[in-house]
Amino acid sequence: MTPNSNYGRVYNFSAGPAVLPVPVLEQVRDELLCLPGVGSSVLEISHRSKAFDQILDQTLADLRTLLQIPEGYSIAFLQGGSRLQFSMIPMNLLRGTDKTAEYIVTGTWGKSALAEAKKEGATKVLWDGKEGNYSSLPNIDELGSSADAAYVHLTSNETIQGVQFAGDPALAAPVVCDCSSDFLSRPVDVSKYGLIYACAQKNAGPAGVTAVIIRDDLLARGSDDLPGYLLYRNHVDGKSCYNTPPTFAIYVMGLVIKWLINDIGGLDKMAAANQAKAGLLYSLIDQYPTVFQGHAEKGVRSMMNVTFRLPSDELQAEFLAAAKAANCTDLKGHRSVGGIRASIYNAMPTAGVETLASVMRDFAAKHA
Amino acid sequence: MTPNSNYGRVYNFSAGPAVLPVPVLEQVRDELLCLPGVGSSVLEISHRSKAFDQILDQTLADLRTLLQIPEGYSIAFLQGGSRLQFSMIPMNLLRGTDKTAEYIVTGTWGKSALAEAKKEGATKVLWDGKEGNYSSLPNIDELGSSADAAYVHLTSNETIQGVQFAGDPALAAPVVCDCSSDFLSRPVDVSKYGLIYACAQKNAGPAGVTAVIIRDDLLARGSDDLPGYLLYRNHVDGKSCYNTPPTFAIYVMGLVIKWLINDIGGLDKMAAANQAKAGLLYSLIDQYPTVFQGHAEKGVRSMMNVTFRLPSDELQAEFLAAAKAANCTDLKGHRSVGGIRASIYNAMPTAGVETLASVMRDFAAKHA
Repeated sequence: MTPNSNYGRVYNFSAGPAVLPVPVLEQVRDELLCLPGVGSSVLEISHRSKAFDQILDQTLADLRTLLQIPEGYSIAFLQGGSRLQFSMIPMNLLRGTDKTAEYIVTGTWGKSALAEAKKEGATKVLWDGKEGNYSSLPNIDELGSSADAAYVHLTSNETIQGVQFAGDPALAAPVVCDCSSDFLSRPVDVSKYGLIYACAQKNAGPAGVTAVIIRDDLLARGSDDLPGYLLYRNHVDGKSCYNTPPTFAIYVMGLVIKWLINDIGGLDKMAAANQAKAGLLYSLIDQYPTVFQGHAEKGVRSMMNVTFRLPSDELQAEFLAAAKAANCTDLKGHRSVGGIRASIYNAMPTAGVETLASVMRDFAAKHA
Repeated sequence: MTPNSNYGRVYNFSAGPAVLPVPVLEQVRDELLCLPGVGSSVLEISHRSKAFDQILDQTLADLRTLLQIPEGYSIAFLQGGSRLQFSMIPMNLLRGTDKTAEYIVTGTWGKSALAEAKKEGATKVLWDGKEGNYSSLPNIDELGSSADAAYVHLTSNETIQGVQFAGDPALAAPVVCDCSSDFLSRPVDVSKYGLIYACAQKNAGPAGVTAVIIRDDLLARGSDDLPGYLLYRNHVDGKSCYNTPPTFAIYVMGLVIKWLINDIGGLDKMAAANQAKAGLLYSLIDQYPTVFQGHAEKGVRSMMNVTFRLPSDELQAEFLAAAKAANCTDLKGHRSVGGIRASIYNAMPTAGVETLASVMRDFAAKHA
């Protein structure tokens, strides 16, 4: 075991739920029995209490500051994960229109989002990376997206395949972006999007809350006949308290956002740190390409999920054992694709990535 | 301030999210940085990890034991609160059939459930307590429920009005019961129901998870055309991991269930304690009826939410101030009905109820 002894914690490379900042966990622990000045745990306070309202307002304000969300956009904190968003998006923005929703399918999650949209209305696939096993990405400008589309859906980072768009698209139709696995990991020009959504359990908090940032004109689209919980404007009008929100998950997300602002210094700095961490692992993949067979093409590699294969199942088992001996866990690829996946979200410390890099170096020295 | 000094905690009479058992909070705090033997916080572990799978299996098994859930019923832990269940129930059990869903409307939540069902298919109101301002309950046997109904929906305890059915109904059609605010507060004969649902944030855990117990034959009813997240059998087939579940909320619910089994000694004992606590407050309402004007009729009083009014707004303000001085908080009635509501769920200690009773006695001595 390497000397990563604080609290007996390992370097957890899980794709999500995933590692959180230690100072955030410490604050949660310290306040767990009693929020200062409140007399109850955050787990016990009413979502309509003044104490929770302050937490919610602060979280909304800090998120707006951190992501530089412009005027004309609203935020809602929802339940059901990105999976429910796959349905809510076409239910609100497509159903009942005579328009077509366009999908850019760059991996497993884009494919799942499309499958749900097909139940709600007309869809068109602008691009599907299936033939290349989802290892590449298109140039969005060249896909012939229609200005009249209901919306264009894309996945900024495919968690399972490890491919990530580098910048923000510029399209005439509203762009709807699943940012689940790179939310708050880098700056985003929100004005380029109609709707951004992200489940929290990768970079932003625990499982159980999903952030939705929506351009206000799109709020008008959903019909009042939709199930109440599934209509975006109910949540925006109710300031995420249309019904009882996941109060604890919002509180933790609020602490993570504060950590990004105060401890990290904002999203530019976070992005630079993430690039440095990913760069270390990709440089080893490039140095030892016969041992570490990277999945994503060079220009579209994810800064969040580094995916590669070992030459054989035996070598993969040996590698995972060596990693575990060095306190690096949860490196197995998604059950649908296999291989190795190192998820290195915001809260994964540089020391963790350096430890994994050292394991890779030793392994390559032995097997290259 | 009365000497309720552990951790500076007050007696929190919130209707939900609500008070949790202190030993549960202490365990959550102690394990917050690192689950024993796991090396990560429960907030950070994958829902597909062995560690979470064990938590989930144990929680399912313990819930089955505690509620004596018979064979032929499945459990799912969902997001979206009871509010989303108001829609999922008719989407799965009514939509696409030529049947009618029957609703027994005994308060605010029954009314909200009905409103969502109307969007999905044919409904019939078997009874509505509006005329009596939702202070009474019907005899369910005498409402003429049809054996051919898609289902009969009722609310076992109306949190806002404070009325509660005493026993389990016996009907030919599947009974669907919103047990949100009395779940795990007393024994229930699950075999009398087709579907039982409860958001956790009253008796069973933090906000963010909703337990659904469903008779297996009803799982066949929903169409595959439904949005994936909204089809019950997806969650049952995926053992609540159809997508990432609210892992932390499930973990806390598991600890609460263990507390009910090991510390309390099961639901019979919990029910007896709850009756004693409620009895103390209702006896004062009966003793001083001009000061404490109880809302619910005597035979249908809730063991969970004790609702009453003071003779004037001034006296209400004085009462709330006296309660606060005695460390009793969150006693204001729901914003839609006003008055006083003392929510005394499982985890509200007897000492808290006794403190409130003492405030009531002093107040009555002054004003009766």
